[in-house]
Formats: sequence, structure tokens, C-alpha cells
Amino acid sequence: MTKRIDPAAAPQFNGTTYPSPYDEPCLARQRTRLGDAAGLTQFGVNLLRLPPGAWSAQRHWHVGEDEFIYVVSGEVVLVTDAGDEVLRPGDCAGFKAGDENGHCLQNRSSADATVLEVGTRTPGGDTAYYPECDMVARSGGYTKRDGTPYPKQERRGG
Amino acid sequence: MTKRIDPAAAPQFNGTTYPSPYDEPCLARQRTRLGDAAGLTQFGVNLLRLPPGAWSAQRHWHVGEDEFIYVVSGEVVLVTDAGDEVLRPGDCAGFKAGDENGHCLQNRSSADATVLEVGTRTPGGDTAYYPECDMVARSGGYTKRDGTPYPKQERRGG
Repeated sequence: MTKRIDPAAAPQFNGTTYPSPYDEPCLARQRTRLGDAAGLTQFGVNLLRLPPGAWSAQRHWHVGEDEFIYVVSGEVVLVTDAGDEVLRPGDCAGFKAGDENGHCLQNRSSADATVLEVGTRTPGGDTAYYPECDMVARSGGYTKRDGTPYPKQERRGG
Repeated sequence: MTKRIDPAAAPQFNGTTYPSPYDEPCLARQRTRLGDAAGLTQFGVNLLRLPPGAWSAQRHWHVGEDEFIYVVSGEVVLVTDAGDEVLRPGDCAGFKAGDENGHCLQNRSSADATVLEVGTRTPGGDTAYYPECDMVARSGGYTKRDGTPYPKQERRGG
């Protein structure tokens, strides 16, 4: 068996399970789980495709997991407390676990963008905070900031 | 402070500390530590540049750390028990911790190749075995298979 990963055979995770209305900008995102295809468990590696207008996520930060992104093609806007930064192929950024400066990528261009993204996989899952949404991601699902669970949603979009 | 990583300001790790004669094909390799530049600690992300003739490493496998590689430019040959596979931009592969099928990348072309590589960082370091060399990487340095330490070597090449 060859070691080269066949993206067509890799698990695909498209769209989102965010509760409404936070799902809207993320419905069109598409992720190919390359690391999973190779049986990796310690970190995830996805090829993220963002059509025009799509976002990688709502702005968020992880309590326990490092993240890293590398732009492969197209152009995305990285949104953080540092303001908007346009990232082009070869540009990259990292987001340290516990750093409360939330981030997301937005495709404001008229062409697709693809981004390689890496994130630690914590056994049992991690917590993520969304500074611009009344939403927290916990291992059991999404809740409001006060802990009230959102109804579980099917994955949709993509 | 912007979040985009400036590769020129990222730590550079060139060449190798392998004992001779295993160092020879790896002297020209160059690594820019992008993950370190962003303060990440849970995994490393390097941009590896391989001039013609250079290898990423001697064939090896890690006991405790997952690895992943993604070709950004140029062409490399992935060497594993599966045989030689030519990888081109956009091709990728993963190497699960504990899988004894050792791997390395060799640039047999006449142009530079660049590869994004990701690997878990285990606190205290990891052990790596080199099936084609009388060499084992341990947290304390390189030894022969029988445990005899090699003399510590300066980093050289690059």
C-alpha cells in the first residue's frame, strides 16, 4: 500500500454543526481530513476549502489545543485582535492554546481559497470560546456562555 | 503585533547532528521552524528546504510521535517499505507513531523542493529508530543499536 494520501479517499467534513445564526458564514466550508486518512491521532491535519464568502469558523480560541494554518492557494483574511491581515499562498500563522485572542479566516475574495490547518487532538475533546458569539464548544456539544445547551444539530451545508 | 509569521524571523535549523557517516545526505537540509515562531509547543511545524541531492533524514520511525508531510514545491521521493513514491506539490503523507515502516524524503531532482512537516512534540523527547543505520535517537542523544553513545556532535552543514 502506498503511503501517499489519496485526498479522494480521505474523510470529508463539510459545513457545520454550529447553532443558528452562527452557522451561516460556515455552511460552505469544506474540510478533507488528511491526517485521519493516514491514521494519525495526536493532531488533525485538514485541507480546508473556502469558497468566496465562506469563513473557516466563528472567531474562537482553544483552551488546550495549539493550532496552525498555512495558505496553499487563494487569499484569506485572518481576523484577530491584531486586526485584519490578508494571507496569501505561503503565509502562515499559529494560535497557541489558551491565548484568548480569537481567530478565524474569511474568504472575502472572488475565488476559492485552500488552507492547510493543523490542530492538536486532546483525548476527551477540548473547550473553545467564541468571543463574538453566545456560544462555547464543549466536549458534550455547544452551549450558551451561561452553560445552557443548544439543541444538537445535524451537520449541514458544504 | 500581527499574527502572520515572518519566516525571516523564525528559528532556522540547518544541517544535522547525526554521527558520521549518516550525516552526509542531510548536511544540506534547511528547516525554518514556523510553529516555534508562533510559540506553539504541542507540535512542531517546519518548512523544510531540500536542495538537489539532499534528504530530509535517514529513514526512521518514531516510537511516540505522529508525523505528517505536505509538499509545497518541487519534487521529492518518499522512501518506505512501500517502495519509492514521487511526491509533487499538494501530495502528502502521514506516519503514525509506533509504525515501524521507516520513512524519509530524498530530493533526486535538479531543483529545490520545499515541504511542510508537522510532528508531535513529546515532553522529554521521543525515541526514533533508523532501520538502515546503526543509530537510535534517544532523548540524551544518538547511540548505536546496542546503546553505546556516539560522541556529541556540533550541528553542521546547511
